[in-house]
Amino acid sequence: MGDARAPSLTLLLGGARSGKSRHAETLIEQLAPPWRYIATAEPFDDEMRARIAHHIDRRGAGWRTLEAPIDLPGALAGQPEGEPVLVDCLTVWLTNVMLSGADVATATRGLIAVLQAPRGPWFVVANEVGLGIVPDNALARRFRDEAGRLNQAVAAIAGRVLFLAAGLPLQLKG
Amino acid sequence: MGDARAPSLTLLLGGARSGKSRHAETLIEQLAPPWRYIATAEPFDDEMRARIAHHIDRRGAGWRTLEAPIDLPGALAGQPEGEPVLVDCLTVWLTNVMLSGADVATATRGLIAVLQAPRGPWFVVANEVGLGIVPDNALARRFRDEAGRLNQAVAAIAGRVLFLAAGLPLQLKG
Amino acid sequence: MGDARAPSLTLLLGGARSGKSRHAETLIEQLAPPWRYIATAEPFDDEMRARIAHHIDRRGAGWRTLEAPIDLPGALAGQPEGEPVLVDCLTVWLTNVMLSGADVATATRGLIAVLQAPRGPWFVVANEVGLGIVPDNALARRFRDEAGRLNQAVAAIAGRVLFLAAGLPLQLKG
Repeated sequence: MGDARAPSLTLLLGGARSGKSRHAETLIEQLAPPWRYIATAEPFDDEMRARIAHHIDRRGAGWRTLEAPIDLPGALAGQPEGEPVLVDCLTVWLTNVMLSGADVATATRGLIAVLQAPRGPWFVVANEVGLGIVPDNALARRFRDEAGRLNQAVAAIAGRVLFLAAGLPLQLKG
Repeated sequence: MGDARAPSLTLLLGGARSGKSRHAETLIEQLAPPWRYIATAEPFDDEMRARIAHHIDRRGAGWRTLEAPIDLPGALAGQPEGEPVLVDCLTVWLTNVMLSGADVATATRGLIAVLQAPRGPWFVVANEVGLGIVPDNALARRFRDEAGRLNQAVAAIAGRVLFLAAGLPLQLKG
Repeated sequence: MGDARAPSLTLLLGGARSGKSRHAETLIEQLAPPWRYIATAEPFDDEMRARIAHHIDRRGAGWRTLEAPIDLPGALAGQPEGEPVLVDCLTVWLTNVMLSGADVATATRGLIAVLQAPRGPWFVVANEVGLGIVPDNALARRFRDEAGRLNQAVAAIAGRVLFLAAGLPLQLKG
């Protein structure tokens, strides 16, 4: 695949059920397998377990799944050269980091440092969460701010940024 | 109008007060009347009555209004060949279906089957609701997921998809 | 700068932490200083004070700041001819107007009248708040409607409209 597997970073942004994960899978499956899937969600309740099962069912052979709810930078740093990787998703990782009590700024810097030098064609999914009414509680407002800042930081270093709505991609960059 | 009234499906997506209904009206009024308006909202309280009255006031002669809060597939199947139709909106229809206790998957399949074979130039309005913070309650999360899935399914079969923001259309497809 | 400082109106729309203020600052700093910054936020609590301080820190020399939480039309009407002005933001101004008990329709008409005849290159930032789940309470729903209507009215008279996501601009008009 030569050039197709050269290091590059693609960010796929969108709302809930906007088709961003599926679109990322479609893009990555155009490259040669194996495809690495780094899941950040933890199956801590039935609803989450059902969502994760739904995602795993959709992906078929050729995929290798790895969980990294908190140490996403470490998981990315350990990926082999030239391999396509899908991270799904940054926003859940940020939630996990905030809930763990870790310092968000430090964690984000660590992630950005790794994403700045992708070792293969990397695809990163993130939620846009700032387009509704201002949330009532301060924690939700802080989360919204942090998620927006993280999205901006990743978009700034990505070679390509897509915004998904109703399963359709809109190219914002690249 | 010949070709202008040929079967086709246009999806107009957008947030609350994004101008999607008005833009749909503008597009349909470029075709020859009569124009059929299928309303899915039910006037169950004063706020809703005021919203509906506001919409009806805006539309003038040439429009024929029909209410279909639940049986939207049936209402669409009964439309005459070659007539322009505006459905406003899918998201309220989905709410009605969920509140009625009907099976969402079955209802959605029925709707998609009808939309796949439009009998004239059909325009369908839907809300994008997934770009805010994750809702606190499980029902709202489920609604958000169902609305997103419905939008994806309709976008996949539409010939044209527009995203509206501040009254301005952005072409996502077509 | 000649033409670069001719009267014109640019609207920058986006969600929370979408980079819209920063992008507006980048655009205006391409013109000759001084640059006028009209802030609509009032520092009524610590969280708001921190946000305002963060914004002021980011802007450097060359900026002149003015507060106009309610009388934004008056503040704009008093701006000198040919001077670049940034209004940040319309949505907070709308909140202030609603909380003050003033008539929203009257206030909005007054603002639109001034924005229709910009005296220099004016840049106006506003939040898109209608892309989440319908809010539980009636006041939030009304705010969401009013904010959407205001955005449509400003977009209709602006020469250029940008939608920001993750710091990246998408041109909707102009």
